[in-house]
Amino acid sequence: MEARDYIKVPAQELQNLAARLLERYGVPPADAEIVSEVLVTADLRGIESHGLGRLYPYYISRLEQGALNPRPNLRLVRNFAATFLLDADNGLGHVACHRAMEKCIELAKIYGVGLGGVRNSNHFGIAGYYAMMALQEGMIGLCLSNAQPLVLPTHARKRLLGTNPISVAVPAGKSRPFVLDMATSVVTRGKIEVCLRKDLGIPPGWGADSQGKEASHPAQVLEGGGLFPLGGGAETAGYKGYGLSAVVDILSGVLTGSGFLSGVLSAALQAEPCRAGHFVAAFQVEALMDLDEFTGRMDSFIEELQNAPLAEGSDRIYVAGEKEFLLWEEHGKNGVPLHRKVWAELLDLCARHGVTPPDIL
Amino acid sequence: MEARDYIKVPAQELQNLAARLLERYGVPPADAEIVSEVLVTADLRGIESHGLGRLYPYYISRLEQGALNPRPNLRLVRNFAATFLLDADNGLGHVACHRAMEKCIELAKIYGVGLGGVRNSNHFGIAGYYAMMALQEGMIGLCLSNAQPLVLPTHARKRLLGTNPISVAVPAGKSRPFVLDMATSVVTRGKIEVCLRKDLGIPPGWGADSQGKEASHPAQVLEGGGLFPLGGGAETAGYKGYGLSAVVDILSGVLTGSGFLSGVLSAALQAEPCRAGHFVAAFQVEALMDLDEFTGRMDSFIEELQNAPLAEGSDRIYVAGEKEFLLWEEHGKNGVPLHRKVWAELLDLCARHGVTPPDIL
Repeated sequence: MEARDYIKVPAQELQNLAARLLERYGVPPADAEIVSEVLVTADLRGIESHGLGRLYPYYISRLEQGALNPRPNLRLVRNFAATFLLDADNGLGHVACHRAMEKCIELAKIYGVGLGGVRNSNHFGIAGYYAMMALQEGMIGLCLSNAQPLVLPTHARKRLLGTNPISVAVPAGKSRPFVLDMATSVVTRGKIEVCLRKDLGIPPGWGADSQGKEASHPAQVLEGGGLFPLGGGAETAGYKGYGLSAVVDILSGVLTGSGFLSGVLSAALQAEPCRAGHFVAAFQVEALMDLDEFTGRMDSFIEELQNAPLAEGSDRIYVAGEKEFLLWEEHGKNGVPLHRKVWAELLDLCARHGVTPPDIL
Repeated sequence: MEARDYIKVPAQELQNLAARLLERYGVPPADAEIVSEVLVTADLRGIESHGLGRLYPYYISRLEQGALNPRPNLRLVRNFAATFLLDADNGLGHVACHRAMEKCIELAKIYGVGLGGVRNSNHFGIAGYYAMMALQEGMIGLCLSNAQPLVLPTHARKRLLGTNPISVAVPAGKSRPFVLDMATSVVTRGKIEVCLRKDLGIPPGWGADSQGKEASHPAQVLEGGGLFPLGGGAETAGYKGYGLSAVVDILSGVLTGSGFLSGVLSAALQAEPCRAGHFVAAFQVEALMDLDEFTGRMDSFIEELQNAPLAEGSDRIYVAGEKEFLLWEEHGKNGVPLHRKVWAELLDLCARHGVTPPDIL
């Protein structure tokens, strides 16, 4: 990422802009608010791959084609005590997963824990957003989702698993919260594409070619190959990442009645419902320990990690989510860096819909 | 493992023997039954590292020293609706975690889900045993545990995390259940020790030396170095395995009031309580979907994976737990292979305590 390719825009301006554009496609204002906040939060946290750069290809292009339902009827299919199943009615994944996490929190207030699945959904942005919703309630949040197949099961040469993210958010005291938000593949496809654009090779352990053999060039992975699950090949325990990814697909897809494995479709551009599923849970810290005591212990946990002796050649030990919180603070102050291409795409959409873009120069 | 080093013993005989030995150290018969079943289940599933080979060093030697409490007063410290915290009173981890999973199942019958932590516990064998307890109830089970530090956080050269296992068990229909049971490190220390004994090098990505640099010889890892978390070094996303391992430690140790990071002591031989903690959950499949429909969908999920086109040089695609079920079936029929050294250790204990060993040749 070269600085001259980016402009900086205040987060709130971007959020308003994205929300107004979504409304033009029939998305109700409250829902548009949620989607735009999730997308801008990704940009704020430095997860550019899941930010406003996706507003057009993943969401608006699919609303245009009628592939996504702008006004879904979110339906509680089951609700037994602390558990539930929500049908997203092929709406935006953000809206459905936000509702599901709200439901988890509501249930956790009553039962200590709440847990549910979402079916017939679509791409929802960053899993971390929903897991983090639990934080302000003194709860621990979990969010999983399946996605279209890009990852090779160990010993297979067919992509069958998504990059199926796992996010867990845990409140802390003086320290920033602990927020794990990870794909269960070694790297994302975006990272391979960057190597291709820069004409670079890829290191061992990232992916395989169309025969399932370790790839050294990004094109081998992108053209009929696939990403390795976390761990890489079998010798470095890639079957563990494969197992974790399978757990995410089972809970998000098999158990919810949504698509799973090859039954989940791409979220980009295409005209069919994705049939993605999500799985969310929240539980009260106070179910096990007083919140003050816990957040104090989390501070000790985080400090012991941060202050550990450094490996040769390393200059800092991070805790999950820490880098993203540092970026969030910086981008909140100085504006969100937006690639000029993404900005041009937004301006183009504004022109088509008579939306006034923010004056950012 | 060379066949001539092993004898085969019927599982039930081994279980009785181990239980009787534990009773000699003051463990109540019902508790001794649980511990011996967990240990023999590990041997049955081919997880020799967690089987009867540990009866002496991990459990009996520590009972002898008074480091482990043979008759703990398991105490429910908190129990709010579907959640609870159990104090293991420094007893055998197997007994405490078994009780905790029973409690989860009981709660899940009422609330759809049950979830709890265990503190002041000790090593508990294989996490998979407890997760699998949920299967016969038509539930999905989860079991986590922390352990003494052997794993390096990304960019650190001090061991701070345990091999902190994650196990998830899911019922299926015609297929065997899906049972993920994995350490969150790339490999276990046992695997590194085997390389040392055989005078072999270790492949990249397994561990680092005392300076935190990638190791190529097992001695570098064992003497002041450490294991890499799943993913290996930073370039291959070892920070994801580090993050997962941290989640396990937070839920098992920080949240339960047990030890965490350097506060968890070794389970082998030493005379202090380990202060290990566990975290367990179970939830009803039927909370989200009818069991028959779900197990049918699990069969389809498993079949699609098993029947995927093979990578070059591979001859079979496994699903998590499948290899272990195949071994279980074989060892159940033909006897559990037990290393002669382990057998000699058991015979020695029998002689000391007037326990008659099974007549196996």
